[in-house]
Amino acid sequence: MTQKLPFEALSVETLPARLGANEAVTAQIGKDARRWKVREVGDGNLNLVFIVEGAEGAVVVKQALPYVRLVGDSWPLPLKRSFFEYHALTRQERRAPGSVPSIHHFDEAQALIVMEYLAPPHIILRRALIEGRQLPNIARDIGLFMARTLFRGSDLHMPTKDRKADLALFADNVELCGITEDLVFTDPYFDAKLNRHTSPQLDGLVAELRADRDLKVEAQRLKHLFAANAETLLHGDLHSGSIMVTDTETRMIDPEFAFYGPIAFDVGMLLANFWMSFFSQRGHEQTEKRDAMRAYLLGVTAETWAVFRAEFSHLWRTERTGMLYHRSLFEDQGDRLGAEQALDHMLHSIWTDLLGFAGIEVHRRILGLAHNADFEAIADENLRATCEAKALKFGRHIAVNRRQIHGIDEVNNLAARIEQESSL
Amino acid sequence: MTQKLPFEALSVETLPARLGANEAVTAQIGKDARRWKVREVGDGNLNLVFIVEGAEGAVVVKQALPYVRLVGDSWPLPLKRSFFEYHALTRQERRAPGSVPSIHHFDEAQALIVMEYLAPPHIILRRALIEGRQLPNIARDIGLFMARTLFRGSDLHMPTKDRKADLALFADNVELCGITEDLVFTDPYFDAKLNRHTSPQLDGLVAELRADRDLKVEAQRLKHLFAANAETLLHGDLHSGSIMVTDTETRMIDPEFAFYGPIAFDVGMLLANFWMSFFSQRGHEQTEKRDAMRAYLLGVTAETWAVFRAEFSHLWRTERTGMLYHRSLFEDQGDRLGAEQALDHMLHSIWTDLLGFAGIEVHRRILGLAHNADFEAIADENLRATCEAKALKFGRHIAVNRRQIHGIDEVNNLAARIEQESSL
Repeated sequence: MTQKLPFEALSVETLPARLGANEAVTAQIGKDARRWKVREVGDGNLNLVFIVEGAEGAVVVKQALPYVRLVGDSWPLPLKRSFFEYHALTRQERRAPGSVPSIHHFDEAQALIVMEYLAPPHIILRRALIEGRQLPNIARDIGLFMARTLFRGSDLHMPTKDRKADLALFADNVELCGITEDLVFTDPYFDAKLNRHTSPQLDGLVAELRADRDLKVEAQRLKHLFAANAETLLHGDLHSGSIMVTDTETRMIDPEFAFYGPIAFDVGMLLANFWMSFFSQRGHEQTEKRDAMRAYLLGVTAETWAVFRAEFSHLWRTERTGMLYHRSLFEDQGDRLGAEQALDHMLHSIWTDLLGFAGIEVHRRILGLAHNADFEAIADENLRATCEAKALKFGRHIAVNRRQIHGIDEVNNLAARIEQESSL
Repeated sequence: MTQKLPFEALSVETLPARLGANEAVTAQIGKDARRWKVREVGDGNLNLVFIVEGAEGAVVVKQALPYVRLVGDSWPLPLKRSFFEYHALTRQERRAPGSVPSIHHFDEAQALIVMEYLAPPHIILRRALIEGRQLPNIARDIGLFMARTLFRGSDLHMPTKDRKADLALFADNVELCGITEDLVFTDPYFDAKLNRHTSPQLDGLVAELRADRDLKVEAQRLKHLFAANAETLLHGDLHSGSIMVTDTETRMIDPEFAFYGPIAFDVGMLLANFWMSFFSQRGHEQTEKRDAMRAYLLGVTAETWAVFRAEFSHLWRTERTGMLYHRSLFEDQGDRLGAEQALDHMLHSIWTDLLGFAGIEVHRRILGLAHNADFEAIADENLRATCEAKALKFGRHIAVNRRQIHGIDEVNNLAARIEQESSL
């Protein structure tokens, strides 16, 4: 049953009346809407998120607002992002089954998705890492998710006619791409209005980075790559705040930034968030040192990248059914090593690009508008600034030197070395 | 006046009756359709082309057919390519005024474009070069055309919302992209059904190239770049058969392959056609040597690339109004050299990619389905094979070694050295 009423934002009070007759909802949680318990829990920057509990179960109702929630109605943002989120979720579920919440209902006019409630002990990964929890499965689960969605959404696997149609569909996600283009790749590198940073502690370093020609040029080349290289359907916002975990389960949520871009973008943004967690741990040490947590986090980056490479390579060998690097040129001619050579080249190019995207992501989280709780939750501003400064220097190093960095161990050794320095 | 009748192919006989009341046509050539002179002159691979002369002037009527003319109705091809050609022509005219034929009328249902007749002495550039004519303006005119259309169709200049909408529009040009993807990047490198080459003279070299792992991997990486890197609106088929010239004028025609792809593709394909003309000159020497023509052709490649770079750089400095490499990060901070650094990096990347596309274009014209008259018009098969073999070796060298080749003089010296070798 699709409502054709004009868009109206839900509230805790109106939700039961508005969705009480929705069969996709009532099938999940029961029909007695008057007894539903509704909570609004949206802690993101953009949307309303309700948890609705009925006699038979619970669902999440996520609704887009026609503006950026973090900023208010002075910053309009189209409702169609809900459409893109819905279509991204259905594709991700097909390509990496079990990795995203189940979808029960989508109402385009109301910009509203009813989906599986990931109940406690599910927790946002970022929060778990701030608490110092070591999740045993995240590297494997996220590495597989990325390899499967990014490989299977590209011309390596899809019929190119389908990919081009999908590319055209998601090309309309202009405004959310615009947020990334501005807030991630541009604003952090000049004195843009929405920027903020821990001040005055970081002022000197921030001025230095904004005068750093090599860094700025590299950031712009990465923006160019992001905007032009329509390689695969990205999640588009794959950070530790977009992942829900338990000790045994990992689910990727919130793909409203989805569009066709470079494979390395999702991977780089994700790894950057692990490295930021690493540099922020010092700020969360209370009674005990977090050396084990730091070692765990570096291990997670190494394992995530290893799992990604292994699964991507496996899919390359078994599901390379698209038009790129076609078997007719390699395996069918008995030239298996030709296909392996092309795979090596491709993984190398993903590697050098992901380091760039990772470095930029670190910067924008400390210099731009959208900071993250890893650092924000450190109340002591001097301590926070110390953590942030190390992350900024790390980000600069890997972005500018990305073509000369050999492997993930080298990056992790660099992170460890920077972390151990005492001075800013 | 738009006709909504179902598609029907025009003929010399039916054209006056069908277009006699079309005001866009009669305004150009006069109303007395019974006295129109109609000739069908399509010598391309895909379409019908009529020259229609009336009392007051002449026009060209180009109509797509629902199949590939070169192959027949066993190879269907959608009429919508006419729609893409029309939209590409209007954009090219806006971005590089005077460089394409004027459009008088477009009928989408009939897949029909009425456009300016480029009367004699206009001649297809390829034919002029086969005749050994040295056109004085082509390097400058084509270099400017490429720089202007490719720069102004990208996120360097356009509002990204417009570019993304245009990207989505042209993403539907699937079938013509598919021709390039198959015939240019894939088929030449294995024993594909539609391939042909001068045989048996080239059999040994062809087998060698099809077993050449580095070449095949490089060709596939270039295909990947072609398919994924939606940087700008390309002409998509910019060879010397798509250019009409006089001694003073140069017009680019036939952009039905237009879509969003890498800047280097148009430039590389174009230069490849000059290099092929260079290697084919030996086959057209009759009473006199063509040393001067060969020198002219190498000069044209050097000048085209120099003009392209100069104009691209000029536009970079004066029209960089898009979201990429934004002034706020460079000039507005007094960092002009930052913008120059980014420009150098970008031109370097166009350079290394265009060499790859050029090498592949040479191969597909000798190994694939669509050969070109430069070589085909050489009746002596042994002589033709000698010319083709040199071009094939040249193409392999620049495609595989493209990252290590310093500049256009080095490429031209290589071409000259290969040309002077006596053996296959």
